Formats: sequence, C-alpha cells, structure tokens
Amino acid sequence: LPIITMTTDFGEGPFAGLMKGVIWGINPEARIVDLTHKVPPQDVRAGALVLEQARKVFEPGSIHLAVVDPGVGSERRAICARALGMYFVGPDNGLFTQALDLDPECEVRLLLNKAFFRKEISNTFHGRDIFAPVAAHLAGGADFRELGPVVKDPVLLDWPRPFQKDARLAGCILCEDSFGNLVSNLDQDTVETFLKGRTGLVSMAGLVLRGISKNYSDTSPGGIVALFNSTGYLELAVNRGNLRKKLGLDSSRIYGVPVSVSAFNSKH
Amino acid sequence: LPIITMTTDFGEGPFAGLMKGVIWGINPEARIVDLTHKVPPQDVRAGALVLEQARKVFEPGSIHLAVVDPGVGSERRAICARALGMYFVGPDNGLFTQALDLDPECEVRLLLNKAFFRKEISNTFHGRDIFAPVAAHLAGGADFRELGPVVKDPVLLDWPRPFQKDARLAGCILCEDSFGNLVSNLDQDTVETFLKGRTGLVSMAGLVLRGISKNYSDTSPGGIVALFNSTGYLELAVNRGNLRKKLGLDSSRIYGVPVSVSAFNSKH
Amino acid sequence: LPIITMTTDFGEGPFAGLMKGVIWGINPEARIVDLTHKVPPQDVRAGALVLEQARKVFEPGSIHLAVVDPGVGSERRAICARALGMYFVGPDNGLFTQALDLDPECEVRLLLNKAFFRKEISNTFHGRDIFAPVAAHLAGGADFRELGPVVKDPVLLDWPRPFQKDARLAGCILCEDSFGNLVSNLDQDTVETFLKGRTGLVSMAGLVLRGISKNYSDTSPGGIVALFNSTGYLELAVNRGNLRKKLGLDSSRIYGVPVSVSAFNSKH
Repeated sequence: LPIITMTTDFGEGPFAGLMKGVIWGINPEARIVDLTHKVPPQDVRAGALVLEQARKVFEPGSIHLAVVDPGVGSERRAICARALGMYFVGPDNGLFTQALDLDPECEVRLLLNKAFFRKEISNTFHGRDIFAPVAAHLAGGADFRELGPVVKDPVLLDWPRPFQKDARLAGCILCEDSFGNLVSNLDQDTVETFLKGRTGLVSMAGLVLRGISKNYSDTSPGGIVALFNSTGYLELAVNRGNLRKKLGLDSSRIYGVPVSVSAFNSKH
Repeated sequence: LPIITMTTDFGEGPFAGLMKGVIWGINPEARIVDLTHKVPPQDVRAGALVLEQARKVFEPGSIHLAVVDPGVGSERRAICARALGMYFVGPDNGLFTQALDLDPECEVRLLLNKAFFRKEISNTFHGRDIFAPVAAHLAGGADFRELGPVVKDPVLLDWPRPFQKDARLAGCILCEDSFGNLVSNLDQDTVETFLKGRTGLVSMAGLVLRGISKNYSDTSPGGIVALFNSTGYLELAVNRGNLRKKLGLDSSRIYGVPVSVSAFNSKH
Repeated sequence: LPIITMTTDFGEGPFAGLMKGVIWGINPEARIVDLTHKVPPQDVRAGALVLEQARKVFEPGSIHLAVVDPGVGSERRAICARALGMYFVGPDNGLFTQALDLDPECEVRLLLNKAFFRKEISNTFHGRDIFAPVAAHLAGGADFRELGPVVKDPVLLDWPRPFQKDARLAGCILCEDSFGNLVSNLDQDTVETFLKGRTGLVSMAGLVLRGISKNYSDTSPGGIVALFNSTGYLELAVNRGNLRKKLGLDSSRIYGVPVSVSAFNSKH
C-alpha cells in the first residue's frame, strides 16, 4: 500500500493529527509519515524544498500531501499533480514546482469531484476536508483522472537555477536545515561538470572556502566547510556548530544569498 | 481496529514514545495518532480544547488518551469515560468536560482493575503505567464495564457558554491556534440563530469588525477578519499574520478575553 | 514484528521522516516509534539517556535506532549492538553505553555489509543511508552476524556512578526532563539500600529536602520535592512548576551538578 507523507506549517497543534483521523477513517490501512509540520507559517517555498528532498527518497506511488496554504478558502485552486511517478496533493500555489519542472510528462488535475471530499467543507481547513480525503482515496486505488479536469497552468514558483557568469558558477542559498547549515541551489552534477576536476573555491557572504569537503569533520570543530549534502546540493556548514548563527544571519534573510564556485586556478 | 489518539503536555522528550511502546506491547495492531504533545504544561483546559476538536473528526469507537495530569500520584482519580460513542482515558480533572456535558448518556468508570495496568505502577507516570495500557486493552476489545466501578461525579471544568445580554451575544476567547488565530466559544449555530440574517458586528479587545468573513483572504494581507473556523467556532485572525502577536497579547492571558457579537442595525 | 524506535537530534525538519521512507521502502510492515528528535544538537550523552529510558519499556527484540552523530562521514565507526535482548543501531560514539555496561553478554558488530545499506551512501546522512536500512532489515529478520565483524572496543561514555563518601551517598544530575525536573543518577535500589529505612535528606545546589516523596503533589504548588521518577531515578522537582528555571540554571549546565543523600539521623 502506498505511503502518504505530510508536509505542513501547522506547528504544534492538533491539525495534523485531525488529518490523520480523516485519512484512517477512509483508508484504515494507510501508512502515514510526517515529514515536517514546522514549515515556517505560510512559506510556500520552504514547503517546496521539503518536497524536493522527499521526492528523492520515497518509492514510486507515494502520495505527498502538502498543506502550506495562505490562500485557503479563496479562489486559489486545489490540485493533485502526478509527476516523477508520485502524487502531490495540495493547494495550487507552487508547492510542487520542482516536481512539475522536472517531469515533462507530469499531469495536474483540479480537485472538483466531491465524492473524494469530506461531506462538509470548511472555508479554513481544506487540509482536513479536501486534501486528506483525496490522498486517502488515492492510496486506496482511486483513479487519478476521476479527481477532476486537467489543469494546464499550475502555479509555479520562480526557482533559482545556477548559471555561469564569467569564470564563476553562480547560485544562491535556498534554505537552512535544522542544524543551521546553509543549503544552496548548486547541485553536485552542475558543480562537478563546471570544475572538471579542478579545485573549487566557494564564496558566500564574505567567506571564501578552498576545496569542497567530504565531511563536516574535514575541519576542526568550529571550522567552516562546503560540501555536497545528503540531497546532493552544495551546503556550507560549521563543524559541530550552527553557521547561520555564526554569521549572524536572520532566518528570514537566508533565501537568495549569493553563493558562487570558481576554480582555484582561474582568475578570481 | 479502533484508533488511539494521544493528547499530552509532554513536550519534546521521549514520554509519548514510551507510552506507544507500552500500547504496542499489549496490542501490536493498534493505530496511534499524536494529536499534540504541546499542551501548555499542566493546562487542563487547553487539553480539553484539543479533545473538543478531536471528537468532531474521529470515528465512533475511537479512544482518546489524554495525559495532562498535574495531580499524578495524588488522590485524583483515574477514569475512562464513554461518551459520544468514543472512549476518553485519563486523569479525572476535567479534561473530558465537553464530551461529558454533551452526552446525557455518558458513563464514567474508575480505573481500578489492575489486570489492565502495567505490572509496576510508578507514582509519577500513570500515562505509561495506567492510561496507555487501559487504552491498548480497550482497543483490543476489553469490556468497558470491567475497568472498574461507575463514577457518578466526574470532575468538570467551568466551561464558559455564550449568553445574550441586552442586544449582544457575549462570549470569550478560549485559546489561540498555532497560527495565532484567537478562537472563541461562540459557535456558528448560536451566532446565526442570534443574527437571524442580519450583519454581525464582532467586538474584542477594542477591535470592531463588521461582518463575518468566509475566508482569511476576505481582507488584504495584514487585515483582521472574524470567521467561523474549521471546528465551527467564531475566530479572529489576521490574513497571513499572527493576531495574538499583533495585539501584543501574552499567550497566558488569552483565555477569557470577552468577545461579543451584535447586529449591525441594532443600537451598539 | 519488532518495533523500531528513533532517537535523533534532527529537530523539526524532514530528516526523520525521510528515514521512515527508507525503512518502509525495505520493510513495509515495520512499526516505528519516535522517541524524540529533540536531543540537543550533537549531545551524545543526552541521546544515551533517552535510550536508558527506552530499554526499560520496550519489548525484547525491539530495535533502537539512534542518530546523534557529530562525526558522520569521518572515521567514526557505524555499529549495531545486541544487548539486553534488544538491538541498538547507530554511530559508535557512546550512545549505547548504558546497555553495553549492563549486559556482559552483549555483542557489537561493525556495519560493513553493504547489502544492508542504501545503494548510494552520502557523507552526511548515514541515518538515512546506513542506519535506517540496517534497522529495517533487522526488523525483517536479517541475521545480526551478517552485518559485519565483531567490534571488541566500542566507544563508551564515562557514566557517573553513585558512590558512598563518609555518611553520604553521592551522585549527580544527569539531565532535565521536559517539565524542568532534574534527574539524578541515584537509582532507587542504591538509595534504599543505603538508607535502610531511615529518612533521607537530599541535598543539591544549596537545597536540602527532608524525606523522599511519593508524588509531586506531596507538597503544595510551588514547593520542591525529591522523588523516584518513572524510570526509578531520584529526581528533584517543583510541584506544578519548572525546577531548572526556578533555580536559574542554564540547560547546558545541568549535567554533573552534585546531589547527595544522607540519613536524617546521621551527622550531616
């Protein structure tokens, strides 16, 4: 039976548990995994970044239920996307940008078929009343095409892509993880193709790091390293510390900080 | 198989997980849902408000295990209530007030039958040693009546009820949710019966809002709305913000703040 | 089917959920319990203390997966210990000290057999790539001996033991729980053997408490008590309050604060 993952900004209250009650009321066999309920409130991009990690780990057929939904009850659409062999259920606000970008065969359906909803639909908690029951029905084998008509123009976030500029590969920070490590949009393939075996020089916020490390402990405790993290993205970190705090950066100001890679032997 | 929900003030430590170990030791098939473990420490009323949401979502037969238990190990009784087609297991301190108030057929049993407990009972963790095993046995089909004798006088909290005063419907704030929305005790039925189709004027803490909105986004970002939330209670909220913080209210001072509704055309 | 427990310092992000995705990809039937993901970052001793509670509650055969791993990707070894009838999977950094100390028959294996790993191993997330899959395979019946060769010298933490000095039984604080209660290394057997029925006098940080209470509520709200907690260790607590805060102690300075017990009638 497929897995349903949950990604929300519900924090510490009972909302996520209430959604599980709805899922199990429809599909008592469903296996449910909490990815996180601590997406910063209403931060759609942060939610999208969680899903970007999830799509690399979960099996085909998994159902990713994501509710970061500042527009709940407004005109924003409710959708289910089928992409990369998985399903993504939630509001049409860009949460699924990366999967939709990566899969040219993706298909998006508008959630219109009330047979898959709870009987009464509140204006403020579509997670419980629409998204959870749709995910539960999909996990039980419901036909994706019966959810509703095709959506041709799902909302997509601007997703910053690395680009080459002069002798640099330019990217930016996307987010921090729970250890205060700063994660960029520079993926290992792109960086290694650019470096062609040369030693990399990583620059961010005044820091210049020579070489890309294998491990946090390639430097002594308190030292700063750049390495490819477990999702394959270039990340800057303090060995046994919190880089964001060390740099005095506010969490809300991480996104978009420029990061670049150049080759040590090139001019810089 | 029935669902066991958990509502505690255990915070971030392993206590909730230890209770699950006990439940699964007795009943390996039990399905367990965390509602929240972040009830403010020893705040029985806040725990009761979580159960008030749970009873509206979970299926008949569900077992609500709640441990907000400042009196653990003292003379306070341990009980199981059967009400609204569900079971409620925990200390006799008012956690189950709302279900007991709403169901005239409810029955409460004292937890005395040690056959349903762990072998050794600590003085400080009845969640693990009494309540979790009782819930696990109930989920496995144990007979409610065998838990112990009937309790005629379970502890009930004062639960503030809306009342009409002059041309106003008067209520108060019960709690905030994790977004900082302020939830009152004014339920949709009572408010709509009072308003009889007239436009409502909602007053709280110096705010006066004209009309009850359908959605958070009925106002521009930063604007304040009153609406019926997903549990059917009148709630005040900031679109894409945190109302409690905006008003500069301390979390511990939310409870009891007066809220009233009057009709726009009446004198006010 | 055995239970897999999880103890990590991953905090609020998706890492724990990603590990569950890996476990269920290998073993869809596995039952997984979160003990805590809020071990203070990289605090191995705090992780060890969680496992010390878990080993007293979970059934034989349970698999304790623990990832507090400041040395991930370095030379530190990855191990599985079989002790006390359970399995412990994680980095070789002392997390399993107490179980290894208590079981003279324990056996530790180096995790070398890649048949039990994910296909690609990152340098920074062995929880997902090594420990979770090993736990999933063990839960499915994999042979412990096939994990890798025996480790003769697993890393052990210094674990402070109570000792008698003059007419005092001397111990120290190990940790606080989520209520701010301070937990010592003085276990009930040792204390009661020492006291031989005499009334105890408990001293810590200038406090002197006469008698060991049964319950938090043996004193009035705000009063301080010493009692044996649910794990059988002597603990100091404020009835309906937070002792650590009341004493103005910083969380990082709790560990090692001396606690002693003497008999009321002896000289002290």
